[in-house]
Amino acid sequence: MEERVKVAVVGASGYSGEELVGLLLRHPRADLVCVTSRAEAGRRLDDVYPRFRDARRASGPVFVAPAVETIIASGATFGFLALPHGLAAEFAAPLVAAGLRVIDLSADFRLRDAAVYREFYGHEHPAPALLAGAVYGLPELRRDEIARARLVAAPGCYPTSVLVPLVPLLRRKLIDPAQILVSSMSGVSGAGRKAEVALLFSELNESAKPYGSPKHRHLSEIEQELSLAAGLPVVINFTPHLIPITRGIVSTIYATPNRGVDAGQIGAAWTEAYGAEPFVRLLEGEDRLPEIRHVANTNYIDLAWRHDPRTGRVILFSAEDNLGKGASGQAVQCFNLMAEFAETAGL
Amino acid sequence: MEERVKVAVVGASGYSGEELVGLLLRHPRADLVCVTSRAEAGRRLDDVYPRFRDARRASGPVFVAPAVETIIASGATFGFLALPHGLAAEFAAPLVAAGLRVIDLSADFRLRDAAVYREFYGHEHPAPALLAGAVYGLPELRRDEIARARLVAAPGCYPTSVLVPLVPLLRRKLIDPAQILVSSMSGVSGAGRKAEVALLFSELNESAKPYGSPKHRHLSEIEQELSLAAGLPVVINFTPHLIPITRGIVSTIYATPNRGVDAGQIGAAWTEAYGAEPFVRLLEGEDRLPEIRHVANTNYIDLAWRHDPRTGRVILFSAEDNLGKGASGQAVQCFNLMAEFAETAGL
Amino acid sequence: MEERVKVAVVGASGYSGEELVGLLLRHPRADLVCVTSRAEAGRRLDDVYPRFRDARRASGPVFVAPAVETIIASGATFGFLALPHGLAAEFAAPLVAAGLRVIDLSADFRLRDAAVYREFYGHEHPAPALLAGAVYGLPELRRDEIARARLVAAPGCYPTSVLVPLVPLLRRKLIDPAQILVSSMSGVSGAGRKAEVALLFSELNESAKPYGSPKHRHLSEIEQELSLAAGLPVVINFTPHLIPITRGIVSTIYATPNRGVDAGQIGAAWTEAYGAEPFVRLLEGEDRLPEIRHVANTNYIDLAWRHDPRTGRVILFSAEDNLGKGASGQAVQCFNLMAEFAETAGL
Amino acid sequence: MEERVKVAVVGASGYSGEELVGLLLRHPRADLVCVTSRAEAGRRLDDVYPRFRDARRASGPVFVAPAVETIIASGATFGFLALPHGLAAEFAAPLVAAGLRVIDLSADFRLRDAAVYREFYGHEHPAPALLAGAVYGLPELRRDEIARARLVAAPGCYPTSVLVPLVPLLRRKLIDPAQILVSSMSGVSGAGRKAEVALLFSELNESAKPYGSPKHRHLSEIEQELSLAAGLPVVINFTPHLIPITRGIVSTIYATPNRGVDAGQIGAAWTEAYGAEPFVRLLEGEDRLPEIRHVANTNYIDLAWRHDPRTGRVILFSAEDNLGKGASGQAVQCFNLMAEFAETAGL
Repeated sequence: MEERVKVAVVGASGYSGEELVGLLLRHPRADLVCVTSRAEAGRRLDDVYPRFRDARRASGPVFVAPAVETIIASGATFGFLALPHGLAAEFAAPLVAAGLRVIDLSADFRLRDAAVYREFYGHEHPAPALLAGAVYGLPELRRDEIARARLVAAPGCYPTSVLVPLVPLLRRKLIDPAQILVSSMSGVSGAGRKAEVALLFSELNESAKPYGSPKHRHLSEIEQELSLAAGLPVVINFTPHLIPITRGIVSTIYATPNRGVDAGQIGAAWTEAYGAEPFVRLLEGEDRLPEIRHVANTNYIDLAWRHDPRTGRVILFSAEDNLGKGASGQAVQCFNLMAEFAETAGL
Repeated sequence: MEERVKVAVVGASGYSGEELVGLLLRHPRADLVCVTSRAEAGRRLDDVYPRFRDARRASGPVFVAPAVETIIASGATFGFLALPHGLAAEFAAPLVAAGLRVIDLSADFRLRDAAVYREFYGHEHPAPALLAGAVYGLPELRRDEIARARLVAAPGCYPTSVLVPLVPLLRRKLIDPAQILVSSMSGVSGAGRKAEVALLFSELNESAKPYGSPKHRHLSEIEQELSLAAGLPVVINFTPHLIPITRGIVSTIYATPNRGVDAGQIGAAWTEAYGAEPFVRLLEGEDRLPEIRHVANTNYIDLAWRHDPRTGRVILFSAEDNLGKGASGQAVQCFNLMAEFAETAGL
Repeated sequence: MEERVKVAVVGASGYSGEELVGLLLRHPRADLVCVTSRAEAGRRLDDVYPRFRDARRASGPVFVAPAVETIIASGATFGFLALPHGLAAEFAAPLVAAGLRVIDLSADFRLRDAAVYREFYGHEHPAPALLAGAVYGLPELRRDEIARARLVAAPGCYPTSVLVPLVPLLRRKLIDPAQILVSSMSGVSGAGRKAEVALLFSELNESAKPYGSPKHRHLSEIEQELSLAAGLPVVINFTPHLIPITRGIVSTIYATPNRGVDAGQIGAAWTEAYGAEPFVRLLEGEDRLPEIRHVANTNYIDLAWRHDPRTGRVILFSAEDNLGKGASGQAVQCFNLMAEFAETAGL
Repeated sequence: MEERVKVAVVGASGYSGEELVGLLLRHPRADLVCVTSRAEAGRRLDDVYPRFRDARRASGPVFVAPAVETIIASGATFGFLALPHGLAAEFAAPLVAAGLRVIDLSADFRLRDAAVYREFYGHEHPAPALLAGAVYGLPELRRDEIARARLVAAPGCYPTSVLVPLVPLLRRKLIDPAQILVSSMSGVSGAGRKAEVALLFSELNESAKPYGSPKHRHLSEIEQELSLAAGLPVVINFTPHLIPITRGIVSTIYATPNRGVDAGQIGAAWTEAYGAEPFVRLLEGEDRLPEIRHVANTNYIDLAWRHDPRTGRVILFSAEDNLGKGASGQAVQCFNLMAEFAETAGL
């Protein structure tokens, strides 16, 4: 049996933390040595999450209170942070300083510019000195940088669903950066495990609604990465919607091909960019569009596109599990790259 | 007690037919004298739909086989057609000829041009001679014409959710007709009561998917009405999605104000157009966007809009019950106008 | 137009309060003059519940803080209490003293014995002096007493679904009071609108669970009423389950006919007891059992029964809307009786 | 890498067949060499089930028409049958004769007595000669027999949820065999992938209903196994319910301890029977009862019990995934035993 790497999950009482713990518990090369939660400290992991209980093992990992010293003392060489933004940076800085490699699932290190962080998150960035060294953890865009990184910022769920389809097209200058419009719909787990009336079953069931328009926080990282891909500032419209499912995101994106671009180049660009990717599936066939049920509980993102000759626009579609490729699965994919494991290990 | 008008529902085995029957059974001025269904002929209505059973009445209406003579013989002066397109026209023609006033919920009389019908529905129009006299039954746009009509074509569910927000803006030339993009999501009842694997609970639950892109059938009537409002041919992008709820549609619409138009004019145009409408609610307040739960089981359509100063676009939102304002509720609203009842009677 | 009766709803921020307000707003004989909520005081009703907004009325009722004086000053002659148990009694006593007739939806006045209240609710009864005069508000069992009552305790949602099928059988001594076992499943709105993690969409969706076994609070009123019907102390097993729907309860009840009782007497007893009831529907036919979808958003309770010759037992089934016949609908039914309106008015 | 065993799945167009294929595709010791489906013959597996598509492999397994010769020619040494009852036997007989070891997920070989089969399934048993040699595949009850079997009948979903909690208690004579009553609720996938109106999303969503009372087909195998455990004929009441989730079963069981039995012996019997079982989890703690969400997508069955001193009865609770431990997961568990793999391999 191959050697395992010791890992810690800091802040595992939310949905992405729970998902991360699940993935790491069955990861063939990870040894989960530390799981923290302020709320659950002292309770057994499988008491809080009965789903993880091993029928034959009387005891399992126990939640500890989140403290930098405790995490370091656990011997972990990798730290996953599944904390609210603002708080994540408080742990990232000392852990990186202590030599751990950190994969942060919050928004704290996704933006290169602390001013943009302030604009979208409403407070000063808590650790601006770390921003320059952080890598935006979308393996399909930055595989090599992630592999070498000390601090990786796992992308947001919506951004992953928007960037994967768009970046190759902008890099190849196939579409007009000024004509991008996105409509996304997400399952409720994306809103977090918070005791709020607005997230109650009876408030969301049998309903659907747009929200966060016109300036959802995720727009900041979406536009940052689209701008990098296009080589010029990109501003888009993005509208998220909440639908009554637990997991999954579908994004429908409108774009306008640049003059002289043939619609077929869209598909060719994707094939070139993603043909060898283990977690990007390019759907083909006239009757096939992405559906959440085909990606739920996986690390896949499914893509398809259509050309509308009547308007000249192309429509791009993606589907992913917001807790998988949109959060914890992607974080593990980054971890695999950083630890030099098979990229698909445990996924 | 005021006199009642005798009405027939032709084809009541689907979801909109069932909804229509429910509305008419409790309508203060309608007397449901004839309900047809090929599949259910001979069965009691409340046996097929136990929800409609009156606890103290041993018997209720009985389904009869659909036949023009039977419908005429029932004495009905109004006929609602809840039949598949193509079939509806076969009943509309003789019923109108026999002097009944007809409200058709199918697509057969929504389009003015038989060629467009052929393009989108794949077969020749079955009764082109009736097209000129049919009225597109959106009361907020054509109240007076509906009141006088012999044959009303109740609009599709998606079209209602798109036309109500857009038409006043195009009529006032506030937005660019070439820059309209729509993303809609609908509950499953919109797909009809058909014994198909694709509509099974386990195929749709916990999922969501786009479909019908780029040329859904409803596009034909949407563009027809937008073109009439704009006074020039309008071509748009429209993408429907299926989400796991039974009832309801949310539409999110992107538009670009014309040069010189202030965003505030959007709201002013809506207030002017709909301020006195009984079934259009203009939501106000920064935290208020349309939600399906607030319109489900009603005849309301809720509207809100946002301006995005970053892209210069406006985003329009609507929510309705696809079986209410999107189908059967609207058909009853037309009926009320035609019969000179209070427009809100029974709704 | 007939005269209206002024009514107040005290505590309208929960699901049964919201439902009650909806029923009373469209009740032909009720005039809702006072709606209280500590949390929402000062906000407009249709701002808190956008579903109730009238498209053409700029303003609607406004929530006021709950205070006995305010309620009395409103001129209401009927007060509905939709408050947590314990708190309800604090309002019931002074309102009854001031001459209002009170319909309480909490558990405070359902039990005749303050000691049983203490046993099941964990604190002393807050107004034991009122218990003797309170009437358990199940119209099918106590129509006349309700009509005359000053204080009516609307039954719990589970109890209604269990008592309606069982009471006629116990009164007629058709079944063994020692052999009653109940398994119920309820929609989530029954748990109330509380900001608790356990009630979040993502915790309940795609799951189901038993809870409150073996001694759920509703057992106290179920057994009280069964004992009254049987004329001897009845103790039963009752297991509630939570299922991922918003509204509705199904109860499946096992009973053993007494020696010499023919199974057909079950149906005959129900017909005798409920044949003329407006809200009890006795389903017939081999393929017909109660389903929530047929009673949701109604005040009906549907009943059916089966005899199992292999075990000798009978199985009784009921379905109701937990917010309808199980709470607010039933409260309005009681109100109609008390005010001498048609029993079905507004339902 | 260890050697793999070649397996065939016969009839993979239903939900349990799909689940089986998913489990076997990622099973470390199975090589899926043949997948049949009449309806899908000629289509690629990952075209029918996009969820199984490997992003980097252009092609995958292809469905073949079901024919005994084709299956034998594939070289498979194990055949899983996921066919309707009646049809399964037609394949089981020749495949067993050809030397394959067969795991049948249908009801064809669960009953020892062909007369009981006829009574419950309405037609003559198609291969009575095989009944004597078939083993009822519940590993927790018959591990050794399964390991040696040529033909294993994987138990039904409801029976698994009922037998696991009850058998140890009957074997130890702790409960009265004449006083067993079961109420179960199941997700919709248990009804199969059939194009029927009754299984449509809009017919089942936001509802719940009992069905199949009093004599559901699964009763036959439940009572057979309970009788074997008790050493005398056992007849019970069993009521299944359909609830709007895709996967999962909860069973709530009432039993009466025999005179002199202390309630604590229930738990002790379970610990003795299942303490070392890999897939049976005994929940402890006053606030812990089985929930579907903790077992969905696993092969676990979770158990808990309560004693009601008021009635003297015990209440047993179980939860499982109807497609996991209730069908395909259990079939793979049997396969592991038969092939002498780790019992948990691939699960």
